[in-house]
Amino acid sequence: MKRIAILGSTGSIGRSTLRIVESYPERFSVISLAAGSNYKLALEDAKRWRPKIISLARSEDAAKLEAELKKTGLDGIEVVHGAAGTVRVATHPEADFVVSAIVGVAGLEATYEAVKAGKSVGLANKECLVAAGELITAEARRHNKPLLPIDSEHNAVHQCMRGGRMDEVAAVWLTASGGPFLNTPKSQFANITVEQALNHPTWKMGKRITIDSATLMNKGFEVIEACRLFNVPPAKVKVIVHPQSTIHSLVEFVDGSILAQLSVTDMRLPILYALTWPERIESDLKFQVAELTRLDFAAPDLDKFPCLRLAYEAAEAGGAKSIALNAADEVAVAAFLEGKIRFVDIPRVVEQTLHETPDTHPESIDKVLSLDAGARKFARQFIETGLKTKVTSTPATLSR
Amino acid sequence: MKRIAILGSTGSIGRSTLRIVESYPERFSVISLAAGSNYKLALEDAKRWRPKIISLARSEDAAKLEAELKKTGLDGIEVVHGAAGTVRVATHPEADFVVSAIVGVAGLEATYEAVKAGKSVGLANKECLVAAGELITAEARRHNKPLLPIDSEHNAVHQCMRGGRMDEVAAVWLTASGGPFLNTPKSQFANITVEQALNHPTWKMGKRITIDSATLMNKGFEVIEACRLFNVPPAKVKVIVHPQSTIHSLVEFVDGSILAQLSVTDMRLPILYALTWPERIESDLKFQVAELTRLDFAAPDLDKFPCLRLAYEAAEAGGAKSIALNAADEVAVAAFLEGKIRFVDIPRVVEQTLHETPDTHPESIDKVLSLDAGARKFARQFIETGLKTKVTSTPATLSR
Repeated sequence: MKRIAILGSTGSIGRSTLRIVESYPERFSVISLAAGSNYKLALEDAKRWRPKIISLARSEDAAKLEAELKKTGLDGIEVVHGAAGTVRVATHPEADFVVSAIVGVAGLEATYEAVKAGKSVGLANKECLVAAGELITAEARRHNKPLLPIDSEHNAVHQCMRGGRMDEVAAVWLTASGGPFLNTPKSQFANITVEQALNHPTWKMGKRITIDSATLMNKGFEVIEACRLFNVPPAKVKVIVHPQSTIHSLVEFVDGSILAQLSVTDMRLPILYALTWPERIESDLKFQVAELTRLDFAAPDLDKFPCLRLAYEAAEAGGAKSIALNAADEVAVAAFLEGKIRFVDIPRVVEQTLHETPDTHPESIDKVLSLDAGARKFARQFIETGLKTKVTSTPATLSR
Repeated sequence: MKRIAILGSTGSIGRSTLRIVESYPERFSVISLAAGSNYKLALEDAKRWRPKIISLARSEDAAKLEAELKKTGLDGIEVVHGAAGTVRVATHPEADFVVSAIVGVAGLEATYEAVKAGKSVGLANKECLVAAGELITAEARRHNKPLLPIDSEHNAVHQCMRGGRMDEVAAVWLTASGGPFLNTPKSQFANITVEQALNHPTWKMGKRITIDSATLMNKGFEVIEACRLFNVPPAKVKVIVHPQSTIHSLVEFVDGSILAQLSVTDMRLPILYALTWPERIESDLKFQVAELTRLDFAAPDLDKFPCLRLAYEAAEAGGAKSIALNAADEVAVAAFLEGKIRFVDIPRVVEQTLHETPDTHPESIDKVLSLDAGARKFARQFIETGLKTKVTSTPATLSR
C-alpha cells in the first residue's frame, strides 16, 4: 500500500490523482492533503479519504473545516493551514509518495522540504524545476530518491530514457501542439485577442498555461524542466511541433535510434506512471493504435514565438534568469488577460526582465522566492512605464 | 574487443556487418567467416580481415581459396566448406558474437549450434525463428544468452521493450510499409506482374523478401518471429500499415503507454545495436527528427493479403505449421518469379500446404529440416497438379 500526500488536492492534477487512488484502492491510500481555498471540496475529501492531516490556505477556512469535521466525529483528522501547513502535509512521516501539484511558487517550499525529507516526489508543479531545479534535483540525488515528472512531455521522456543510459542520450525532443496560432501569420499577431489565445486546440487547461501554450513559453519552460530533470544541456533539448499531441516526446540516442512515447491525452496516465514506477499496472487509459491515421510534424518558428528563444537563453544561464523568465511571464500573462498589454508584448516584458536580472545562482528557496518577487516587481513596473513609453533602454533597476 | 563470427559474410547483412567492424576497429574484430559461393569476395575478405577460419559452400571453391591464400602467405587461415564448415565458423571457441545472416534453412543448423555453444547471437535469418523458434529460444534461455534481432522491426521491439518488464507488455505492434499493392484494388490482384511485385516502395532487398513484402507474408513471418523471440502469444502481436517505414515498430504496455522506435532505414543500425547491446555507441546513422513532416498509418486488409491471416494461423499452431508456412511460401514465390503461378496463387499454395501439415512439434533441427523438405515437396506437387487442375480437395499426402 503506497500512502500518498497530495499538494494541490483540489486542483486538476489533485483530482486526477484522487481518481487514480479511487481506481486502485488495494494499492494506494491518501495520507495527507493540501488544498487551496476550496473549503467545501476539502471537506468532502476529508470525509471520503480520511487523511491524517489536511491543510487549507487560509486560517479561517481551516477553522471552519475543523468545526465541520468535529460535527461528523472526524476530529482525529488534524487541520492545519498556510505555507507551514503545506510543509506538514508534504513531509508527513507516513507519506511514501508526494504529488506536487500546487500551481506557482507557492508549491516550491513544501516540495523542496518533501525532497529534503527523502520522499519520492511526483512533480506537476512547473516552478519546482524552472525556478528551483538546480536545488531540488541536487537534493533528490543526495537522497537517491526519484523525481517523477507528472506532465505528458517529461513523463514521455522519462519512459523513453529507459531505452538507454543517460550518457547515451544524444537529444531530447519535446513535442509541442503549436497552440492556436501555429498557422497564424506573424503580421496578425499584434491583433490576437484574449479569447483567441484561450482557445487551445488539444488540451483543456488553466488560463495561464493556455496562454503560455499559445506563446510557446510553456514549451520553453519544459525545455528548462527537461534540462534540470534529466541533467542535459539546453543544446540537447529540442522542440518539434506536432499538432495531434499523440507522440508526447522523443529521446534520441547516440547510435541514431529514437524512442517515442504515445498515449491518450489524459493526465491520469503520467500520474499512474509516477505512482507505480518502476512498475507499470493495468489501466483503462488505452490508446487505440489500430485507429492511428496520420501524425504531422513541423519545426517551430522562433521568429513568431520569441518566448521559446528567451527560454533557451534562461535555460543556458539557469539560476536567477530561469526564475525571472517564469516570474515575468506570469506577470505579463496576467496583464494580457486583463487587457493591459497585447499578446506580442508578453515576450517584450519577459525579455526586458530577463536582461535586467543578474546571472546569479540562489542557494536557498528563500533566495529563489526573493529573486522571484524582484522579477515580478520589475515586470509590473515595466508594463506600467517602460512598455507604455517604449523607453526600454532605461528600465527601473531590479532589486537583487 | 568483441570477436565476431559472420554466417553469410558475402550477403547484404554480412557486408553491412563488415562495414560496422570497419567503422569501429577498436571495438570489433572478425574471428570467422562463412560465405556462400562468392569465392572472390571471400578471398578479399580473408585478406582484409584475417579471420582464423573461413568457410565456403562448396569444396572446390574452398580448395581454390586455400591455394590463393597460400600464395599470399596467409596459409594460417583455415579454410573449410559445407554445412560442417559453417558450424565450425559459428562455434569457433574465440567467437564472442555470431551474426546469423545465411538466408533460408541453410542457416538453421549452424545458428542452433552457436546458441548451443553458449554464443551471443544476432539473428538476421528468418527461418531460425519461424521454423525453429521454439528450439532456438529454449536453448538461448538455457544458456542465459541473448538472441538479438537484426531486422528493423524486431530490433525496434527489443528497444521499446526496455520501457517495461515482459509481463507488462500488452501488445507488440509491427509496422508494415504495406508493399507496392497497398492501394491496389483486390479486383486487380489476379493480374499483378512479377515486375510490379518486385517494385518495393521503401526497402531494396532480395527477390524473395520483396515478394513476401508485397503479399504481406513477410510481415506474417515477423509476427511468428516476434511471438518466439519475445515469448508473446499471436493475439498480442499486431500489424499496422505505415507506408513511410519511419516508425519501425511499437510496444504497448499494460498502463496504456506506447513506446515506438524511429530511425533511418539502414540495416547497419540494428546490426550495431545487436553488436553493442546492452550499450549504445555513437554512430553517423542519424535520423533527422527536425525534418519529420508526416507519418501515415492504416489497418492492414486481411482480405487483400490472406498470407498475413495464414501466418497468424501458423503462429498459433507453431511447430510443423510454421515450418510449412515458410517452406510453401518459398516454393510458391519461386514459382511466381518463374511465371508458373499468379500472385494470387501464392496464398493458395501456402494455405493448402498448411492444411496438409500435421500439428506436430519437432524436437531437433534434423526433424525441422525433414518437415521443411516434406512441405516443399507437397507445395511443388500442388503447384504442378492441384493448382492447375483446381482439385484442391484431394491433394497428395504430405510426407510426415
